[in-house]
Amino acid sequence: MTTNMMAEMTWVEYQRRVKTGPLMVLLPLGALEQHGHHLPMGTDHLLPLAICKAIAERIPAVVAPPVAYGYKSQPRMGGGNHFPGTTSLDGSTLTAIVRDVIREFARHGVRRVAVVNGHCENAFFAIEGIELALRELRAAGINDLKVVRLDYWEFTTAATLDRCFPQGFPGYALEHAAVLETSMGLQVFPELVRMDCLVDDPAAVFPPYDVHPARQEWVPPSGVLSPAKGATREKGRVLFDEYVERIADALSKEIEEAQR
Amino acid sequence: MTTNMMAEMTWVEYQRRVKTGPLMVLLPLGALEQHGHHLPMGTDHLLPLAICKAIAERIPAVVAPPVAYGYKSQPRMGGGNHFPGTTSLDGSTLTAIVRDVIREFARHGVRRVAVVNGHCENAFFAIEGIELALRELRAAGINDLKVVRLDYWEFTTAATLDRCFPQGFPGYALEHAAVLETSMGLQVFPELVRMDCLVDDPAAVFPPYDVHPARQEWVPPSGVLSPAKGATREKGRVLFDEYVERIADALSKEIEEAQR
Amino acid sequence: MTTNMMAEMTWVEYQRRVKTGPLMVLLPLGALEQHGHHLPMGTDHLLPLAICKAIAERIPAVVAPPVAYGYKSQPRMGGGNHFPGTTSLDGSTLTAIVRDVIREFARHGVRRVAVVNGHCENAFFAIEGIELALRELRAAGINDLKVVRLDYWEFTTAATLDRCFPQGFPGYALEHAAVLETSMGLQVFPELVRMDCLVDDPAAVFPPYDVHPARQEWVPPSGVLSPAKGATREKGRVLFDEYVERIADALSKEIEEAQR
Amino acid sequence: MTTNMMAEMTWVEYQRRVKTGPLMVLLPLGALEQHGHHLPMGTDHLLPLAICKAIAERIPAVVAPPVAYGYKSQPRMGGGNHFPGTTSLDGSTLTAIVRDVIREFARHGVRRVAVVNGHCENAFFAIEGIELALRELRAAGINDLKVVRLDYWEFTTAATLDRCFPQGFPGYALEHAAVLETSMGLQVFPELVRMDCLVDDPAAVFPPYDVHPARQEWVPPSGVLSPAKGATREKGRVLFDEYVERIADALSKEIEEAQR
Amino acid sequence: MTTNMMAEMTWVEYQRRVKTGPLMVLLPLGALEQHGHHLPMGTDHLLPLAICKAIAERIPAVVAPPVAYGYKSQPRMGGGNHFPGTTSLDGSTLTAIVRDVIREFARHGVRRVAVVNGHCENAFFAIEGIELALRELRAAGINDLKVVRLDYWEFTTAATLDRCFPQGFPGYALEHAAVLETSMGLQVFPELVRMDCLVDDPAAVFPPYDVHPARQEWVPPSGVLSPAKGATREKGRVLFDEYVERIADALSKEIEEAQR
Amino acid sequence: MTTNMMAEMTWVEYQRRVKTGPLMVLLPLGALEQHGHHLPMGTDHLLPLAICKAIAERIPAVVAPPVAYGYKSQPRMGGGNHFPGTTSLDGSTLTAIVRDVIREFARHGVRRVAVVNGHCENAFFAIEGIELALRELRAAGINDLKVVRLDYWEFTTAATLDRCFPQGFPGYALEHAAVLETSMGLQVFPELVRMDCLVDDPAAVFPPYDVHPARQEWVPPSGVLSPAKGATREKGRVLFDEYVERIADALSKEIEEAQR
Repeated sequence: MTTNMMAEMTWVEYQRRVKTGPLMVLLPLGALEQHGHHLPMGTDHLLPLAICKAIAERIPAVVAPPVAYGYKSQPRMGGGNHFPGTTSLDGSTLTAIVRDVIREFARHGVRRVAVVNGHCENAFFAIEGIELALRELRAAGINDLKVVRLDYWEFTTAATLDRCFPQGFPGYALEHAAVLETSMGLQVFPELVRMDCLVDDPAAVFPPYDVHPARQEWVPPSGVLSPAKGATREKGRVLFDEYVERIADALSKEIEEAQR
Repeated sequence: MTTNMMAEMTWVEYQRRVKTGPLMVLLPLGALEQHGHHLPMGTDHLLPLAICKAIAERIPAVVAPPVAYGYKSQPRMGGGNHFPGTTSLDGSTLTAIVRDVIREFARHGVRRVAVVNGHCENAFFAIEGIELALRELRAAGINDLKVVRLDYWEFTTAATLDRCFPQGFPGYALEHAAVLETSMGLQVFPELVRMDCLVDDPAAVFPPYDVHPARQEWVPPSGVLSPAKGATREKGRVLFDEYVERIADALSKEIEEAQR
Repeated sequence: MTTNMMAEMTWVEYQRRVKTGPLMVLLPLGALEQHGHHLPMGTDHLLPLAICKAIAERIPAVVAPPVAYGYKSQPRMGGGNHFPGTTSLDGSTLTAIVRDVIREFARHGVRRVAVVNGHCENAFFAIEGIELALRELRAAGINDLKVVRLDYWEFTTAATLDRCFPQGFPGYALEHAAVLETSMGLQVFPELVRMDCLVDDPAAVFPPYDVHPARQEWVPPSGVLSPAKGATREKGRVLFDEYVERIADALSKEIEEAQR
Repeated sequence: MTTNMMAEMTWVEYQRRVKTGPLMVLLPLGALEQHGHHLPMGTDHLLPLAICKAIAERIPAVVAPPVAYGYKSQPRMGGGNHFPGTTSLDGSTLTAIVRDVIREFARHGVRRVAVVNGHCENAFFAIEGIELALRELRAAGINDLKVVRLDYWEFTTAATLDRCFPQGFPGYALEHAAVLETSMGLQVFPELVRMDCLVDDPAAVFPPYDVHPARQEWVPPSGVLSPAKGATREKGRVLFDEYVERIADALSKEIEEAQR
Repeated sequence: MTTNMMAEMTWVEYQRRVKTGPLMVLLPLGALEQHGHHLPMGTDHLLPLAICKAIAERIPAVVAPPVAYGYKSQPRMGGGNHFPGTTSLDGSTLTAIVRDVIREFARHGVRRVAVVNGHCENAFFAIEGIELALRELRAAGINDLKVVRLDYWEFTTAATLDRCFPQGFPGYALEHAAVLETSMGLQVFPELVRMDCLVDDPAAVFPPYDVHPARQEWVPPSGVLSPAKGATREKGRVLFDEYVERIADALSKEIEEAQR
Repeated sequence: MTTNMMAEMTWVEYQRRVKTGPLMVLLPLGALEQHGHHLPMGTDHLLPLAICKAIAERIPAVVAPPVAYGYKSQPRMGGGNHFPGTTSLDGSTLTAIVRDVIREFARHGVRRVAVVNGHCENAFFAIEGIELALRELRAAGINDLKVVRLDYWEFTTAATLDRCFPQGFPGYALEHAAVLETSMGLQVFPELVRMDCLVDDPAAVFPPYDVHPARQEWVPPSGVLSPAKGATREKGRVLFDEYVERIADALSKEIEEAQR
C-alpha cells in the first residue's frame, strides 16, 4: 500500500521516506467554522487537506493530519465567532500546536515543512508557532530547518480571478463561503455542498474597523459574506488545479534548496 | 444529506441538532504515534474516531473532528517518544485544545460532551483541559455542562478479554500495537494494516519505573510491546461492537440525565 | 493645564473625565522597527500616537501611553525581523499587554476603548488581547465594554489613494517606509525624516508565501519595500487629516452608542 | 540630526552605534499610576526616561522606548491598585516584555543593557525578565550579555537625603508622590506638576503587613503617602543631577568591562 | 551532624556530596488530599518522604524537600477533588515545579535525580516536568542528566500482595486510604493514624469512565475507596521494607551507570 | 490527637475546624537556599513554619504545608542564585503555587488566609499569586476572602533591633544568614546550626544596583552577607517570641473582622 498520509503510514515507511531524500512535510491548517447554509463547517480544513494530498502526488512530500480547529472567526473575514458550530482555539493554543509538531518533524530528521493554511485568521498564530519552533530548534543546535507558510488563495492568478469573477473580484476578505470556496467545495467534496440551501444575501458591507464583541447585525445572518451563486464545479476545478500546480512548484523549489 | 460529523454539517444543521434535543458532542482524542511495522501511525485517533462515528448512529450525538496529535509516547505504554514519526504535543498544548473546544461547545448550547480517548498518555492532560474549561464556564455562569471522559479499552468485558487472549491477558499497558489494536485495525481500517510486516518480537519486559531520557534499549526495536500475531478481524469485530454498544449505553444514560 | 494624555493627567482629572461622560480611551499600538534609511524606528508608534492626539481634540477621548514595541516584523509587510534595531515582542506578550490594560480601563469605569494600530503585524495579537480581556470581564460581570480595533490606513479613501499614487497604488503591504508612511512622517515628525538618506531601491517582489527563517535576499537591503520618493508633506497632511477626521467620526458614533 | 532615542533613530544609525563601540541600551521601566492630586500618572516612566536621556548624553548609550505600564501598585509603596487611572500589568506580562526586548537587543549585537526602573513594584518582575532572557540567550550561545538593573532612587547620597529632608527621611516606601518625586517632577516636567492641587494629608501609617484586597481605608484618599509640601525645584535639580551623574558613572564602569 | 535531607544540610556539605561521588537527588512528590476519616491528609507526601529517607541511608543520595501539593484528586483513584481539605495544583503548576527543581539540581552538578511519587494523579504532570527540564538542559548543553520516575507502589511484589490481601487484591486504583496506605501509615506515622475512626464503607464501584464535574454520589462519603480494616502495622512494615529495598536497588543500579 | 498541621489532620477534622468558626489558614513560604557554612539550606522555610506552628497555638488557625522552594536568590539579599544547593523556582511557578492553594482554601470554605514569608525574594511573586487567586475567585462569585501577606522580619520592634544589634543594625538586606537568622536558628533548630563552621567574613558591600548574571566576586564566598558571630540563642528566643506574639495579634485582628 502506498500512501502519502502520515496517519496511514507506519513509522518504518515514514522513516524510509525521511531518510531517502529531501522530504517535505505538509501541515494543513484549517478551522471548524460556519460557512453559510450550503458549505460544511470543515471547509477550511478539508480544502487545504485536499490540496496537500494532491501536491504530495507531485512532489516528495507527506501530509500530516490537518489541524481542524482554527483561530477565532472574525466578522470581516469569516462572519464572526458568535455562530453556533464555529469552534475556535485561543491564539496561544494554535501557536503551541504548530510549534510542537514542527519541533517533532525536526526531531524526525525532516528539514522542510510547509504549513498550508485554509483559514485566514490562522496566519499570524501559525507564524508565531513557526518562529517559536525555530527558536527552540536553534537552541537545540538545529539550524537548517526551513518552514514555508502560505495561504493557498494567494496562489490564484489574475487570469483565474478574472475567469471566476467576470463582474469583478470583491476581494479575499469577503470571499468567505462565497464563489471561491463554494466552487472549490463543488470540486473537492461535492457531496457535502448543499447548493439548494444557498442563501441569496447581498454582499456584506463593513466599516473599516472591528468592534468587539462583534456587532452581529453587521454580518449577514447566513454567515455568507458575498453571494456564492456564481460558484461552479468547473471554476472549482480550475482553482484547485491552479493551487496544486503552483504551490507544488513553489514547494518543489524550496525542497531543492535542501539538496544544495 | 445526513451526517453526524460536525465537519461535514452546516452550522444550520448543527444548530438544529443542538436546539431540538439533548445532544452530545463526541470528541475523539488520539495520537500520531509509531504502532509497529504493521499498524498506521494514526491508529490511536482512527480507532476512537470510528467508535465515535458508530456511537453517533445509535444515540443523539455528533462527532467533532478528532485531535490527531497526542501527548508524548511513554516507553512502558507506547514505546517511547524517540521513534521517528511519533509526533507529540506538550502537555499544556493538549490541555489547551481540550479546554478551548469544550468552551466552544458550551457556547453553542451543548451541555453534554464526551471525550473519547484512544491514546493512554492523553488521559491526564485531557482531564486538566476539561477541568479548566469547567472552571471558566462556571465563571461565565454555565454550571450545567457535563463532560464524560473515557479510554475506550476500559469498556472491554472480562469475557471478551478471555476470548481475545486465550493464553491470558498481558495487561493494557503492553497492548500497544498488539492483539487488541491490531484486531481493531483489521476491523476498522483493514487496508491500512500490513499483517505481512508483523514483527515477531517477544513481549517487552520493563522494570517498574521510567528513566528519562528513555532507555531505548528497553523497548523492542519494532515498537510493538507484546506479540500481535494473535490478532484477527473477528476479534476486532467483537471488540469494536462491544465498545460501541457499551459506550453508547453509558453515554445514553448521561444524556438522559440532561433531560430531568 | 488641560491635556488628553493619560500620562500627563492626574488621577483626579482622569476620574472626572470618566465620570462626567461617555469617554473613550485610545490605545496606540505600534512597533520599534526598521523603516529604511530615512524614517525613524519609532514610526509605527509615533504615527498612531499623533493621530490619537488629534482625535482626542475632537471627541471625548483620552490617549493612553502607546505600546511602542510590536509583533515580529514580517518580510512581506515590514521587511522581516532580522534587521538590527527592530525590537519585537512575542505574540503572547503583545496579547497580554492589550488584555491587561483593557482590563484596567474597564476597572476605571471606562466602557469604550479604541485600539489604534500602526503596525500591521500587531493586528491579530491585539484582537486576541481584546478577546481575552472581554472574556475575563464577562466573568467579572462587566458586559458592556466595547472595544474598537482599527488599522489607521484602512481609513484612506480611494480619492486620496489616487491623489497620493498618481501611477497606481502598490497595495498596503508594500507600503512599508514608502510613500504613505514617509509623507505622514513629513507631516507629523519632519525633524525625524532624513529625506537625504532616501534609498532608491525598486519595489520588492515577493512570492505569494513566506519562508522562515526569512529569506533575507528577498528583502531590499534598505528595508524599504517600495519607493518612497513620491512622498511629500502635502500628501502627509491630506492623509493625516483624513485619518483624524474619519476615525474620529467612526469613534464618535461608537461613543454615542454608549449613551443610549 | 543626532539623537540617542532609539525610536528617533533609523536602523542604519543604530547599527552604526552598535558596531562602532561598546554601546549600552537603556530601558526605562515605569508605570501609569496615580501620583496624588498634583503629579501626572506618568511620573514613574517620565522620570526614568528623563534620567536615561541625560545619561545618554554622557556615556555611549541609546535609550529604548520606555515601558509605560508597570506592575500593580501596592498600598504600602504606591497607594494600591484600586485608584482610577492606575493601569497595571500582570507580573508575567511585565516579565515577558523585559525578556523579549532584551532578547532583541542581544540579537542586534548589543552586549550591555541597563534596565532603569522608576516604579518600585516592577523590580522583581524585571529581574525575572532579565533572568529568562539570559537563560534563553545562553541556550542560543550568547554568554557575554550583561544587564544592569537599578532603581534610580537607590543612588541618592546620604548628604542629599539630609538636604532634602531636614526633618528626617521617612523612607523610600512612603516617598510615593511625596518630596522626592514632586521635586524631581518640578525639575523634569514642571508644566505637569499642579502644586496648587497639593493635598496636605499626613503621612500614611501602615501596619507591617498587606491585606488583599487592599484595605483602602489605610491609604490617604489623595494617594500621597507622605507630605509633598517640602518639594522644590531646587531639590529636584540636585536629585536629578545626582542620579544622572552617579548612574552614568556606574554604567560607564560596566560598559568598560565590555572592552577588556 | 550528618543528614541526608537537603533542607538540613549547609550548601557546603551538599556541595561536598555532589563533588565526591555520583550522588542522586531524591524528590518526593505527594499531595494534600483527603484520606478518609483515619489517615492524615499528608499521607501521599509523608509516605514517599519516609521511603526516600530510608533509601538515602542505603545509597548515595540526598532527599530534597517534598512537593506536598499534588494534582487534582480523581474520583476513581483518590475520591475526587470536591472534598474539603484536598488542596491541589493545576497540572501546569506541578509540571513547572518539577521542571524548575530538576533544572536547579542539574546546575548544582547533579546528574542523577529520582522523582519518587506517592500520589497517582501526579504521574503525567511530573513526566512532563521532567521532559521540559531535559529539553531545556539539552539546550544549555547538559546531555547526561538521567531522571528516574517511579510510583512507589509499583515495586510491590506479587508475594507481598498475596500476603496483604489474602482475599484477593482489589487493584491499586481502589487502594486509596485502604489496606496498603493504612498499613504503611501504621508503620511510618502511627501517631497520625486514627484506627478508631475507620469507616466500614464497602468498596466503591465505579463505571469505566469519569464524569466532570465529579459525580459525588459515586464516591463513598468517607473518601475511602475500599475497606481498610485489614490494615496492620506488620503489613506496613513488610511493604515499607520492600519498597525501600527494591527501590534502593533500582536506583543504585542507575547511579552506577553514571560512573561508567 | 490534636494538631494544627493540615498535613497531619484528617479531612473530617479540618472540615470541622473550617465550619465551627472563623479559621485562618497559614501558608509558610520559604526557600531552599544557601545560608552560609553554618545554617541549613532550609532556613527560610523552617523559620516561618516554626512561627506559624506557634501562632496556631494562640489563634484559631491551621498550618498548610510550607512551600519549601522559593524565588531565585538575589546577590544583595541572599547571596545570589549561583551557589550549589540553592534550588529556586521561576517566578511564574511560585505565583502559580500560591494562586492554586489559595483557590483551594477558598473552595474549602476558608475566608482568611495568611501567607507568612521567610524569603525576601518571594514577596512579589506571592503578591501576584494572591492577586490572581482573588481575581479568579471574584469571577467564581467569592468576594469575601481576605489574604494577609507578611514578611515575618517586618514585625521586629525597634527595641529588639537595638538589643540584637548593640553596634547598630546593618539593615534587613544584609541580614542573610547573619545575626537575626542565626539567632532564630539557634532557638528553633539548634541541632541544625553549625556554630563551629561560622566564617568570619566582613559584611558584604554592594553597589546600589544589580548585574545579571550575578557578579559572584561581589558576594562573600561563604554566602553570609554580614557577620553572624553576634548571634545567640537568647536573641533568637526574643525574636521568635516577638514574631509569634505580634503576628498572632495582627492575624487575630484580621480573623475577627470575618465575624462582623
